[in-house]
Amino acid sequence: MKPLLLSSLPVAALLAAAALSPASAAGESQGRSWTIEDILTIPEVDEIALSEDGKRAIYAAEIVDIEAGRPRSHIRLVDVATGRTQTILTADATKSLRPIAGTDDWSALLDMGDGLQLYRIGSKGSVRPLVINPAPVPVGKADMSFPIGGGMRPARIGVLDYDWSPDGKWLWYSLIKPKPEANRVRFDEEVSALRNRRRSAIDVEIDYLLRGPDGSTVRIATRPSSDRVATRGGGRIVWQEDEVRFRVEVQDGTLGGSFETWAWDRKKKAVRKLGGERDLLSMWILVGPHGGQLSTTGLDGQRELVETLPGGQRHRFGHVAFEIGDPRAAGWKRSADGKRVVVGTRRTDTLRYELALLAGDEIRTIGTGASLTRCGFDGFLSSALCVEEGTSLPPRLVRIDLNTGAVRRLGSISPRHDPIAPLRIIPRQFTSRDGYKANGYVVMPRGHRAGERHPALVVTHGSDADDRFAEPGNQWNYPVQLFAERGYVVLLLNDPSPRQSAELMEAYGAWMRGKGPPGPDIVRQRIWLNGVHSIEDAVGELTAEGLIDPDRIGIAGYSRGSQMVNVSLTNSRLFRAASSGDGGFLEPSGYAGARASYDPVYGGGPLGDHIDHYRRFAPSLNADKICAAVLQQVASASPSQIDFYEGLRDAHVATQLSYYPGASPASDETHLFHIPSNRLLAMRENLAWFDYWLRGVRDPDAPFPERIAQWDRLADAGRNRCPLTPPTVSQSSSPSPANSE
Amino acid sequence: MKPLLLSSLPVAALLAAAALSPASAAGESQGRSWTIEDILTIPEVDEIALSEDGKRAIYAAEIVDIEAGRPRSHIRLVDVATGRTQTILTADATKSLRPIAGTDDWSALLDMGDGLQLYRIGSKGSVRPLVINPAPVPVGKADMSFPIGGGMRPARIGVLDYDWSPDGKWLWYSLIKPKPEANRVRFDEEVSALRNRRRSAIDVEIDYLLRGPDGSTVRIATRPSSDRVATRGGGRIVWQEDEVRFRVEVQDGTLGGSFETWAWDRKKKAVRKLGGERDLLSMWILVGPHGGQLSTTGLDGQRELVETLPGGQRHRFGHVAFEIGDPRAAGWKRSADGKRVVVGTRRTDTLRYELALLAGDEIRTIGTGASLTRCGFDGFLSSALCVEEGTSLPPRLVRIDLNTGAVRRLGSISPRHDPIAPLRIIPRQFTSRDGYKANGYVVMPRGHRAGERHPALVVTHGSDADDRFAEPGNQWNYPVQLFAERGYVVLLLNDPSPRQSAELMEAYGAWMRGKGPPGPDIVRQRIWLNGVHSIEDAVGELTAEGLIDPDRIGIAGYSRGSQMVNVSLTNSRLFRAASSGDGGFLEPSGYAGARASYDPVYGGGPLGDHIDHYRRFAPSLNADKICAAVLQQVASASPSQIDFYEGLRDAHVATQLSYYPGASPASDETHLFHIPSNRLLAMRENLAWFDYWLRGVRDPDAPFPERIAQWDRLADAGRNRCPLTPPTVSQSSSPSPANSE
Repeated sequence: MKPLLLSSLPVAALLAAAALSPASAAGESQGRSWTIEDILTIPEVDEIALSEDGKRAIYAAEIVDIEAGRPRSHIRLVDVATGRTQTILTADATKSLRPIAGTDDWSALLDMGDGLQLYRIGSKGSVRPLVINPAPVPVGKADMSFPIGGGMRPARIGVLDYDWSPDGKWLWYSLIKPKPEANRVRFDEEVSALRNRRRSAIDVEIDYLLRGPDGSTVRIATRPSSDRVATRGGGRIVWQEDEVRFRVEVQDGTLGGSFETWAWDRKKKAVRKLGGERDLLSMWILVGPHGGQLSTTGLDGQRELVETLPGGQRHRFGHVAFEIGDPRAAGWKRSADGKRVVVGTRRTDTLRYELALLAGDEIRTIGTGASLTRCGFDGFLSSALCVEEGTSLPPRLVRIDLNTGAVRRLGSISPRHDPIAPLRIIPRQFTSRDGYKANGYVVMPRGHRAGERHPALVVTHGSDADDRFAEPGNQWNYPVQLFAERGYVVLLLNDPSPRQSAELMEAYGAWMRGKGPPGPDIVRQRIWLNGVHSIEDAVGELTAEGLIDPDRIGIAGYSRGSQMVNVSLTNSRLFRAASSGDGGFLEPSGYAGARASYDPVYGGGPLGDHIDHYRRFAPSLNADKICAAVLQQVASASPSQIDFYEGLRDAHVATQLSYYPGASPASDETHLFHIPSNRLLAMRENLAWFDYWLRGVRDPDAPFPERIAQWDRLADAGRNRCPLTPPTVSQSSSPSPANSE
Repeated sequence: MKPLLLSSLPVAALLAAAALSPASAAGESQGRSWTIEDILTIPEVDEIALSEDGKRAIYAAEIVDIEAGRPRSHIRLVDVATGRTQTILTADATKSLRPIAGTDDWSALLDMGDGLQLYRIGSKGSVRPLVINPAPVPVGKADMSFPIGGGMRPARIGVLDYDWSPDGKWLWYSLIKPKPEANRVRFDEEVSALRNRRRSAIDVEIDYLLRGPDGSTVRIATRPSSDRVATRGGGRIVWQEDEVRFRVEVQDGTLGGSFETWAWDRKKKAVRKLGGERDLLSMWILVGPHGGQLSTTGLDGQRELVETLPGGQRHRFGHVAFEIGDPRAAGWKRSADGKRVVVGTRRTDTLRYELALLAGDEIRTIGTGASLTRCGFDGFLSSALCVEEGTSLPPRLVRIDLNTGAVRRLGSISPRHDPIAPLRIIPRQFTSRDGYKANGYVVMPRGHRAGERHPALVVTHGSDADDRFAEPGNQWNYPVQLFAERGYVVLLLNDPSPRQSAELMEAYGAWMRGKGPPGPDIVRQRIWLNGVHSIEDAVGELTAEGLIDPDRIGIAGYSRGSQMVNVSLTNSRLFRAASSGDGGFLEPSGYAGARASYDPVYGGGPLGDHIDHYRRFAPSLNADKICAAVLQQVASASPSQIDFYEGLRDAHVATQLSYYPGASPASDETHLFHIPSNRLLAMRENLAWFDYWLRGVRDPDAPFPERIAQWDRLADAGRNRCPLTPPTVSQSSSPSPANSE
């Protein structure tokens, strides 16, 4: 394993080291600055495949088309020897790119305007239909659609997923179809399930079908929409001798769900049940070189990779410093002879994505010094074609010899981003007063000079701060790079990883299971309040090092990050401005729709004996403790978000609730925004918001200029709030209206 | 005025009187029984008009078409001299039937499949378009529709309303059009307004247009959708010399709203503002014979009819025993010379609808001994053609000489219902222990014999228990007549009228205004808890008279009635079964979306200092006090309804929540159900529910037979509840599972 790259050296020392790096120095002098369109048009590669012989590759780069008003997926063929790349078509969506064994062709789910369907792509780029569902089903948060979950954009799906047998002769696929009985009278729990309905919806079923070499097709199962493996991970099929194995979710009323593995025997044409599991963390079935299931277990420092055989016997691969099964990692493949397995890893030290090659009981890790986020593998597992990227490294294609580890770079996936002068982004680990470690990155303001203090923005979102390029799942509508261009220090900070401590694991376990022990006070302390300490102490370190101005600190985060933003604001006086993105969890009004997620946090519902837990912790009920101006940008306009807004407003906290609509009133913007105009407006709104409240600047590029007069009124109305904060010299000399109290 | 017909004599005395009535005796012996289809197909006449010369009339009878799956509107022409009636067309909807002055033609808004549009109907029945909006707007609780309010069915509207000038030469009309900007980013209060969104919606504007004698059309105003006068009562136009006067609602953030009267001058082509009002109770402008506005004021016994002139001067017509301006009453018309006015009244004593004719400062009331619910008037106010009906009288047409009061009956509107043997329905006034009077009707079980006790069902819904025929707005999905056929006594009971007492008026005033005084304890006492006493004491009287079995009493009500059902269950042990229809008000989760309606009841929100008010009173938080089996039938599946269901379930109260869907998942059933199949199922479900819990009978006609096994489980699980009720002899001998504890 490589040595730890993360450091707890002070920033000054790291900067000194960075100054010695020729790449960084060259970037500073030669490149151009980031623009907001750069952030919007970063390509995302989720699909990549390598031919069996390793000579040809195919991948899909999703890039926002600002004129078209939506992202478009560009499918590219790559000649591995030369790196020559050819874009063969552009679709609305691409999924499950795979080689067809025994041929030079590929297959893929493509949305060419008729919903997601299965196509065959010839080696020269021809495209013809393989399986077309003539009645594709609308999915996503849209009228008369199936709300498939997972933040899927409003779209239509005909074929949900598919897989080829290793010899390429059998085709497994899943079709989605509307369930016709949606309009009957419903009773009891079925009505309760409508509580949070915000749109009309349809219900669906998923047929699993198997087409044999003779062209005959048999339906091997029909799964209800409540089976999340079927609706979200339909393609996780394992071909094991004559069997097709797949996981199904069975309803048992618990939060984590209950799962079974089923096996369809191609000869007997019957299903048998192999076994059950609970609280599944990953939809993947990661098979090891002995035919068992791979997993990593144990806390940091004692983490082991093990392979569990069906009978319960375990193969141990020894201690590792990574996780497997993370959907952000590069995937999994078993060699044709079944004796070797490659699996994508996420390192817990450098926060990089790498590969691990398993053969027998041996393990070898393969890395390039950056992240390998998506890979295709040849049939012998002798080579891989991967996307390589890093915090300052735009994604590019690399070929990796899996036997030698040799790396050959094939070219950029994102030529637009190569000329940008890289920002200095310094990995950093912080240790809080509670002894918990939190990993993150310090994004230095462009042109920083020693001794300068800067306004600072903390961006937090679970564990997504890692060694990837301007990751949208982390920075959401917070244009980190532009804040750095404007002179902010941005701290991208993960939650303290629960895997570092049995106590944290216990608390997260209670939250996942839907009940303790530990009790609610301890769960709140370990998951949220320790996190606030972690943020405060990281900011404190950077302040002590002279890098940031303690009177001009903002915080931003969406989803899980928005919980941390809201709890930080009600439990810390560090922040003067905040942007809380599409959150709402922890608010009392969310209880009824998510009891199992709330019970471990509060002990029960807000109207019973547990109200004091809510009064102590729910952000809207503690709005009067907040000293920051709070922007909420939301895609859902949920009651929880509205309650938080109204709580802030009633406490005379400066606040704004901005709702970003869908492409039409018939559909919603997604949790992770996908509509380019919304993303542009939301990023500009955040820039203007923090500039106004932290720097006292009226951004001429503010996207809703008429709101600034409202911000003036809010600043005026909040002038006498937070009297316990003694005014300091730097406050009174600051141009920020929030600090001029 | 006629003498009081209501009696507080015991039922036995009234039955003796009824037995002497030849009509009743004849009905009992000759007619047939009620069927559920009879209830479903009762015609509703909302539109009727008489020609200027009083010789011809037109009306629309809306009758459910069971095969078509929706109500259909049958438009009929009537020759007043002969009574000869001809159905000229059937449309999906009819509104605003009016004669066109100076012609023999009529006009109407008809939905002939292209949305509601304005047509001209010839005297022989020809129909041709007058104003067609080529882009009718979808309205109602449906996807991508404007939620127009008022329980409107999902439909499309082109022309919202219209009116002719008295000389028939000018046409005022209002067009509804979509507002294009619905998809922008929204902020703050505009986002809060989305809190209770259950479907996608569009916004609209309403254009008011005036077409002159020369055919030229001018737009005189454009009103936003927030103007409820425009969206719901667009046709309330007054032609006053050269002016067209109309009310507009302006937004002032209050519950009751703020209103102005505007006048468009046809010569000057300009609008002037005449004055403002607050808290409008009626959308009507009821002009009196002096050109002022008519209203009734004062408590029962001192009620006066007054006409207020624009300058504030008042004409008094003396004491009256009726209300005007009630939308259930027969309307209003002024004679062509302006000197006489006829106005529909609702009597406060007999609960009948009549007419009042005003000339100078004189008043004359006109009645027929039954209710006149809809009337057309000739141009001289010398005659009226009315719908006459009563609790046991199917609707029929009558011609009334407004000068002499002479009545001529023209024939039945509902031949299907004439052969039904009338049930004995006895008007009755009850006085509670608190001294408040409540009016209602005792529906006697078919074939009742002296000395028999019966199971009883109380049906309550505000003030809708009055002298009309099987009124759907009162009995909703509770098939009162079939309960009487099955041997139940049904008590149709109104709330104690607030007009009987300054204290009650004060409490209702606080509820309407959104704040007291009086304080929340008093508001709850006077509006709900006094109502519970009123119900208990009415039932007590009938029990004391030997008519009903005190161990087999049920209660049912929807909307306002559902509040009274839920509060009765948590504050009285009288009931063994209940059906609570599409309610939810009073539940804590309704607070955020209806603060102004909750604040006077609870003092504020549930999560602040007012939680004890909720704990004492909110039905879901007092579910453990309930001894009845509770069915909820709902069209909205609102969080409040779900909370009540879950509160009952968690308290082990036998309960069922039945959600009745819309015609497709893209639309909802309306508050007052309009889909015939839903109405049939819901009525049969209520019959089966009360038969099971009150009579211990498994109804072979139960619409969801598989639910009965669930009821058995609920009965079993609840067997040991309510141990404080001592078992009585009649309980132990009862076959009802609810009583066998």
